[in-house]
Order: sequence, then C-alpha cells, then structure tokens
Amino acid sequence: MAQKNIPDIVIGRLPIYLRSLQRMEDEGRQVTSSQELGERLGISAAQIRKDLSQFGEFGKQGTGYNIEFLSKKIRDILNVERVWEVALVGAGDIGSALARYNGFNQRGFLIKLIFDNDPRKIGSRIGEFTILDATRMAAEIQRAGVQVAMVSVPAAHAQGVADQLVEAGIKAILNYAPVNLNVPAGVRVQHIDPVVHLQRMTYYLD
Amino acid sequence: MAQKNIPDIVIGRLPIYLRSLQRMEDEGRQVTSSQELGERLGISAAQIRKDLSQFGEFGKQGTGYNIEFLSKKIRDILNVERVWEVALVGAGDIGSALARYNGFNQRGFLIKLIFDNDPRKIGSRIGEFTILDATRMAAEIQRAGVQVAMVSVPAAHAQGVADQLVEAGIKAILNYAPVNLNVPAGVRVQHIDPVVHLQRMTYYLD
Repeated sequence: MAQKNIPDIVIGRLPIYLRSLQRMEDEGRQVTSSQELGERLGISAAQIRKDLSQFGEFGKQGTGYNIEFLSKKIRDILNVERVWEVALVGAGDIGSALARYNGFNQRGFLIKLIFDNDPRKIGSRIGEFTILDATRMAAEIQRAGVQVAMVSVPAAHAQGVADQLVEAGIKAILNYAPVNLNVPAGVRVQHIDPVVHLQRMTYYLD
Repeated sequence: MAQKNIPDIVIGRLPIYLRSLQRMEDEGRQVTSSQELGERLGISAAQIRKDLSQFGEFGKQGTGYNIEFLSKKIRDILNVERVWEVALVGAGDIGSALARYNGFNQRGFLIKLIFDNDPRKIGSRIGEFTILDATRMAAEIQRAGVQVAMVSVPAAHAQGVADQLVEAGIKAILNYAPVNLNVPAGVRVQHIDPVVHLQRMTYYLD
C-alpha cells in the first residue's frame, strides 16, 4: 500500500473509522452512512467521504456503506488483513499491561517477544510469555523477522533501545517512554504519553 | 488561557516542546534554539518558531531561547503551572499502571481518586490509593471538585462512565477504552488506543 501520496493525517483517521465499523459489525449491523459514522466519531460526514474517496468508491450515493465491505477495504489499506508480530521491550507496569491486553489479536497484532533487562524479571512469565534477556533483543528480533515494536522502558533508556531495534530491522515503533525518539528515514514512530494528551486539554480549562 | 483562536494542532505540539525543554533543564542546559529543538523532535525549526510566535516573543534572533523561561511560558499557556487533580476510573491492568506511574506529578497532574465497580477491588489499595466504589463516582468527584479524568474501563462501559463523569463536572477526559466517546461541547476528550497508533504505521510497511 502507501502507493499514492495521501496525507498522513488522513491515514491517521482510517484506524478510527475501522474501529467504529468493527464495533458496528459486532453489533450485527450491515449498512452505515458517512452521517452515522460522523456522529459516532465527532467528525463531519463530508470529511469522512473525502478521506475514503482518496482510496476509491466504497459506497453508493443514497445507499450508504456496506460495513463488512468497507471494513475489509480499510484493513487492506492499513495492511492489517495480515497479522503483525510485535516485540515488546520493557516489562514494567505499562509493558505488563500491554502484554496482558487482549485487544491486539483481532485487530492485526500479536505480541511475540517480550524483553527486559532486569535479572529478576528475565525468565519469569507474563501470561503465556517468558520475559527474555534484553541483551538478546537484536538476535531474537532478527531471527523472528519481527518489524513492529512497542517500547515501554524508562525515558533515559528509550533512545538506546530504539537504536538497537532499528539496527535489528524494526520498521515501526510505538513508544510509551515520555521522550522523543529519533529514527532514520523509513522507520515510523508513534508516541503515547498520557501527560502530553492531558496538557493538550488543560489549555482549554479555566 | 485559550483566549486567541489558535489551531488545536498547534496546542497539541506545545506539550511536546515542553517535554523536550524540561528534559534539557534536567540535563542542566540553559539555552536552546528552534534548530536544536527541531532536530530533537523531528519538526522543522520554522514550524517551531511559527508555533511559538502565536503566543508572543520568547527568544531573541541569534541568541535562541532561555530554556527555563520558555518552559515556564509554555506551562503558563497550557495551564499546568498549577496542579490538576485527576480521577481515574477503572483499576484493571492499564488503570493500575497509570495509578503507579510517577511521571504525572512533576508535569501538572495528581491522581486523587480511583474508582472501580469490581467488589473484589473496591477497598483494596494501589500504592497510596484506596479503590473507591464506582457508584460513588459522581458524588466524590463533585465533592473534590475534580475536572480531569482518565477512563480505563472496558469499551462497552466507557460511554456510560463518560456520561456520568460529564454529569459530575469533569471537563477533560483521557480515554484508554478502544471506543470513541461522545461528550457535549465544552468537554474535551483525548483517546489513547495502541492499535490505532500501530495501524497508522503499518499502512507504510510492506
């Protein structure tokens, strides 16, 4: 995918459309409209139609979108019809919560490897996973051919971990450490920092 | 704050600038430049200067920014010179990790109340917190005058919780449930869903 030059902000909305469509599917629904999606998501119907039209014609004027069809199309576009194996680095509170989270599998992701550098954690288990020694990170990731990683290590270690991940062939990093990561072109990073999101809202409060 | 009509996307970058500036302060640094900030953050220096210029003149041509001064100014703009008390709803894996996270306090937030609806959790402790009965949520939030909440409950319960929070006077919700929340005008919501972030990256992978 990613063949056309579509703004990343549009790509960023597709997973949100997909999540809402999958929820409608779970509710047993078959057809929706840009209006309904827009109301659920707080996005204008026109914006949704414009975003989707960049990838083709997915609905007919007046009859709306077939939910299963549109869902599948968006999964195709986002490359999540396949399952991506994920390496998780850092088995602290957040890392352990991610390891136990059961919401990845049906949405395209499967945690495959978990690493930590704490000798007390290495070899112990989180659910079905055995925590591996972080010194084996590059070798294990290369052996498994994993391209996606989540990083939940202290801020001071995050860039060093990211450098090793990139070296090992990781192409996409979801970073929970509260620090920006610098990666070479061709590697994607997304950041999750609750304080950044909270501060973005307090601007508007009195 | 929020007196001028500044795009939300600009507001969204300020916490990232602030985080980087605070890191420089921790490193004992005193002066920086839009170039250096830009390199650390992967944002153009011109963008950073343009964003900051919306709020006033914070640096001198040729001498850069005083880190402590700019830091304080951004904290003022984002309303985080004060500390915001936060209610946390949902003491599962993610909620517990948030309750134990020590990165909130020095960045403007203090978890004050934790709620769950599981009788086995109510009354038990996470660190210094006693988990309160979710049926007391509205009353406790009103009594404490808390305006900010984090929601880490299952998707099916999140909208119901959000409705109660809004009713109780909450003005900003950080939502970890993988579902969109609808709230009235005047209430802000930010969403954290790791899968949404991961799917946004897999679009670009082969």
